[in-house]
Amino acid sequence: MKEITGGICAPKGFKAGGIRCGIKASAKKRDLALIYSEKICSAAAMFTTNKVKAASILVSQEHIAGGKLHAIIANSGNANACTGQAGLQAARRMTELAAKEINVNPKEVAVASTGVIGVPLPIEVIENNMKALADSLRSDEEGHSAALEAIMTTDVRKKEISVEIEIGGKPVRIGGITKGAGMVHPNMATMLCFLTTDAAILPDALDKCLRSAVKRSFNRVTVDGDTSTNDVIIIMANGEAANTPIAADSSDYEIFAAALEEVCVRQARAMARDGEGATKLLTVTVSGASCEEAAETFARSVVASSLVKAACFGADANWGRVLCALGYAGPDFEPEKTNVRFKSCAGEIELCKNGASVPFCEKEAKKILSEEEIEIIADLGDGDGGGKATAWGCDLTYDYVKINGDYRS
Amino acid sequence: MKEITGGICAPKGFKAGGIRCGIKASAKKRDLALIYSEKICSAAAMFTTNKVKAASILVSQEHIAGGKLHAIIANSGNANACTGQAGLQAARRMTELAAKEINVNPKEVAVASTGVIGVPLPIEVIENNMKALADSLRSDEEGHSAALEAIMTTDVRKKEISVEIEIGGKPVRIGGITKGAGMVHPNMATMLCFLTTDAAILPDALDKCLRSAVKRSFNRVTVDGDTSTNDVIIIMANGEAANTPIAADSSDYEIFAAALEEVCVRQARAMARDGEGATKLLTVTVSGASCEEAAETFARSVVASSLVKAACFGADANWGRVLCALGYAGPDFEPEKTNVRFKSCAGEIELCKNGASVPFCEKEAKKILSEEEIEIIADLGDGDGGGKATAWGCDLTYDYVKINGDYRS
Repeated sequence: MKEITGGICAPKGFKAGGIRCGIKASAKKRDLALIYSEKICSAAAMFTTNKVKAASILVSQEHIAGGKLHAIIANSGNANACTGQAGLQAARRMTELAAKEINVNPKEVAVASTGVIGVPLPIEVIENNMKALADSLRSDEEGHSAALEAIMTTDVRKKEISVEIEIGGKPVRIGGITKGAGMVHPNMATMLCFLTTDAAILPDALDKCLRSAVKRSFNRVTVDGDTSTNDVIIIMANGEAANTPIAADSSDYEIFAAALEEVCVRQARAMARDGEGATKLLTVTVSGASCEEAAETFARSVVASSLVKAACFGADANWGRVLCALGYAGPDFEPEKTNVRFKSCAGEIELCKNGASVPFCEKEAKKILSEEEIEIIADLGDGDGGGKATAWGCDLTYDYVKINGDYRS
Repeated sequence: MKEITGGICAPKGFKAGGIRCGIKASAKKRDLALIYSEKICSAAAMFTTNKVKAASILVSQEHIAGGKLHAIIANSGNANACTGQAGLQAARRMTELAAKEINVNPKEVAVASTGVIGVPLPIEVIENNMKALADSLRSDEEGHSAALEAIMTTDVRKKEISVEIEIGGKPVRIGGITKGAGMVHPNMATMLCFLTTDAAILPDALDKCLRSAVKRSFNRVTVDGDTSTNDVIIIMANGEAANTPIAADSSDYEIFAAALEEVCVRQARAMARDGEGATKLLTVTVSGASCEEAAETFARSVVASSLVKAACFGADANWGRVLCALGYAGPDFEPEKTNVRFKSCAGEIELCKNGASVPFCEKEAKKILSEEEIEIIADLGDGDGGGKATAWGCDLTYDYVKINGDYRS
């Protein structure tokens, strides 16, 4: 797998665009995006498990049921959640307006929204700018960048990727863009993530590998423990790579699924690093658990702990908080067999062996924890179980409080 | 029920004391407490459900098994958790040293610790100061205050209470002290809370009403979602009030249980208000859920949401975050039947009706949310279910990050 440029426009046959239509208050920021494939795509998606679902989620769930998509329209600056029947009509209208402009069936258009909850979506500004949006579609990196910018809210860094693999002698490309900075604690889906690929792949195989990739990537990220009302990940595969269509359980499937998982992991890590107010990426790896699911539960518990997050912000080697978070995670383990290490590019240090303190150099620990990427490694000592999992998050900072103390007003 | 002075020394026959022995770095702060009843007490207790349990928890669980206590010894500044066999021996030694000084059986002494995890407990300074601790015992408010100060860590406010009720014509008193500011997300128990009463009460009745009171008080508080390794609540009843011993299911039981629940609710509220860095007490009441358990789950989810907590800090009426937190709580409900109101001494305002926004005055909302005590009231509209519950927490502030970014170093 090699990284290439082009983002979601890297795969053959995809165009993207983004404009400012006026949903966001800022006069400079883009807020409306369109992703389009001339050839109809096999599509798979996963949505938030929050019982309060945005109107866009409900409409996209309906449209994705057929397994086919031509386009995705997405806005930022307004979540179109808790907006009643009017919100539902507005979400549906977005797909109709986009469909008309690009001359496809509205059922083949998915819709996504992100922003403030509970404010009516100004559908008229979207309507007035739909032609401009369609006109902004481009098949190059500029189109990709405009679409990416148009789905960002409190995001500071761009979360984008494009890779190339080879399947049956043909180059196959996958591209992706992701939005996610706050209200991030995905459960079966994530914030907005749109993936494009020119792979030819059977619908059930596409669905299967998306679910598997999300489980080991986005579903292991947390910024603040809040599962959003608007989370969605969609992958569109238009087959333009002209490979033999990938079936589940084939060797080609393994190659594609591995690439897709890596793409999702990199986007998930990037999302954690860009968590609201974050100064550091935290990677928590738990091994020696009874099974992978238990390891995942432990790793997510540690990376979600406000106390662990605040300690990392302060570069304080407070390993007791790691043990505490393992202890309330839920699954059984033996604290007195547990070892904990902290690691970064500045070095690695063991702080806890068999559940108790080992002498360590505070200065060295501080140096390791002062880096921008920190790893917390906990081995629970159940070698037979062999359960291992990694989860990603970020530190808890003054800026998180600042951003969220006054996000809406 | 009337409030009286005296704290844990208000009930007849109890003495308390607290000294500085040198566990805390500060030369001024007390760090060792003793609570004592000359007459042996019926005792009940609840302990943390964290799988990583402090040594003091393990020893106290053993000692409380007999249902009888003469005394509780507690230290702050060191959690004596993740300290291995040496920690266990130190906890046991604390009970032996105290027992020798007050001339009782060590099994009749409970022990509790709070502070940093993973640092060996300096048992020698406790040993050297045990006589001074016993000498500090007093039956008045000064003794109570000294004991309370000696269990505080990052606590800013004193969480203390004493009340009097009448049972069978006899005045019966209950007193309590509580420590808890960070790592607070009790589950079946709480941070340190010690209750004294001179009621005569049968052991099974005491145990039953403690569990019931904790369920509706401490177990509905969260500061940061982190369930501590050291949580414990102990009640000692010495019978000095000379009432007819209270049996479960008697009318006297109802009177005593109601008073105990109110005592626990007040201490729990005080703990939430004194959450690390908090500037505001948040009270979340959910009604119209399918049952009380569901209402409790919803209320705890809202009060634990980092986004709701940060919005309250910023006095931002971001009710969408309340709906979001209800949505990921777990139990089923109908968002489109849900109403949300914010309330404080400055007024009351409806923000969301039937799951959607209602027009409201931003200035008025800001005024309401700028008070020190804020109520968030969500009615889920399932009138038949009638499930209702209240949970308590605090806002998320810069100071929480400051305190926890550098607690240990």
